[in-house]
Amino acid sequence: MEHKGFTVWFTGLSGAGKSTLANLLEKELRAANMKVEVLDGDVVRTHLSKGLGFSKEDRDTNIRRIGWVCQVLTRNGVVAIAAAISPYHEIRDEIRANVKDFVEVYVEAPIPVLAERDVKGLYKKALAGEIKNFTGVSDPYEAPEHAEVVCHSDCETVNESLDKILNVLRQKGYLNS
Amino acid sequence: MEHKGFTVWFTGLSGAGKSTLANLLEKELRAANMKVEVLDGDVVRTHLSKGLGFSKEDRDTNIRRIGWVCQVLTRNGVVAIAAAISPYHEIRDEIRANVKDFVEVYVEAPIPVLAERDVKGLYKKALAGEIKNFTGVSDPYEAPEHAEVVCHSDCETVNESLDKILNVLRQKGYLNS
Repeated sequence: MEHKGFTVWFTGLSGAGKSTLANLLEKELRAANMKVEVLDGDVVRTHLSKGLGFSKEDRDTNIRRIGWVCQVLTRNGVVAIAAAISPYHEIRDEIRANVKDFVEVYVEAPIPVLAERDVKGLYKKALAGEIKNFTGVSDPYEAPEHAEVVCHSDCETVNESLDKILNVLRQKGYLNS
Repeated sequence: MEHKGFTVWFTGLSGAGKSTLANLLEKELRAANMKVEVLDGDVVRTHLSKGLGFSKEDRDTNIRRIGWVCQVLTRNGVVAIAAAISPYHEIRDEIRANVKDFVEVYVEAPIPVLAERDVKGLYKKALAGEIKNFTGVSDPYEAPEHAEVVCHSDCETVNESLDKILNVLRQKGYLNS
C-alpha cells in the first residue's frame, strides 16, 4: 500500500516520554500497514553517532544526521519517527525546512516532575552537578514555539497524547483512518 | 508503483568508476519509476561521516554507517546505491548479511591505469608518499571474492558495465524490464 512519507519529530527533555510515544505511534501506524522507521536514542547512538559527545557542535551534528535520515526516508514514502531531545530550535527548524512533511511533537513535562520520576537516575546526578551539559539542568532547552502537537506528559495519559498526535496526522491528510 | 527494495554496493579503488556507474544506474532505475537513493562519497561525507578520518577504525565506522542506511532503505522498499571504496571484505560481508537483498559490484581497474587517469591527482600524491593511508597504494584493498558483478573499467565501456549490472538485477528478479 503506497502512502505519502512524512516525519514525526519528538522533542523534549530526557525522560519526558518521547520514546514511549514514538513506539506507540509506530505500532499504530504499522497496524495501518504503513512503512515506519523509529530513530530514537539507541538506534542513533549505535548506527549514526558513535563518537559524538555533548558539546553544542556534536549535538547539532547528531541532530542534523538524524534529520537527514528522516529526510531521505520521507522523500521515499516512509514514515520516519525521531525521538531525540533536540534542544535547539534553529536545528529543528532547519530539519523542518529540509524534510517539508514535518510534524513536530513537543513532549513537555516540568523539571520537578522529571526529577521526581528520574527513570534513569540522571536528574539526581545532573542536579548534584555530576553530569555536565545535561539538557534542562546545566544545558539549554529551547522549547518549540510552533510545534504541531504539544503533549503534557505530567497530566495526560499516553493514550490521550497519542490521540492528539493521530488527530493532527489525520487533519494534515497523512492518515486515512 | 511498489517494488522490492535492494542495495547495489559498488566497491573498488578511488577513480575506478564507482560513482559514474552508480549515477548511470540511478538514472536507469528512476526512468523505470523506481525509488532510488545514491549514497556516494559526497553525500556521506556531508551527512553521515563528518569528522571521521582514514584509520581502519574510522573507515569501518563510515562503511557500517552507509551500510545501515542502505539496510533501512532496502527494508522499506527503496533501492539504495552505495559507492564507497569499502576496502575490507569483512565489513562488506557484514553489510551483505544485514541487508540481505544485496548486490555487490566490484569496479576493477589496475593501479597503473588508475594512476595514469588520476582524475583527482590523488595517485600522483599517494605514490609520492604525500598521502598516507591511500587505498591500493599505502593501505590495503581486499578485492571481493563473491561479487555478483565484476566490471573492468579499463577494458569495458560504461554502457557495457551498466548492462552487466542490469542483467544481474533482472536475473535476481529485482527488475521487471
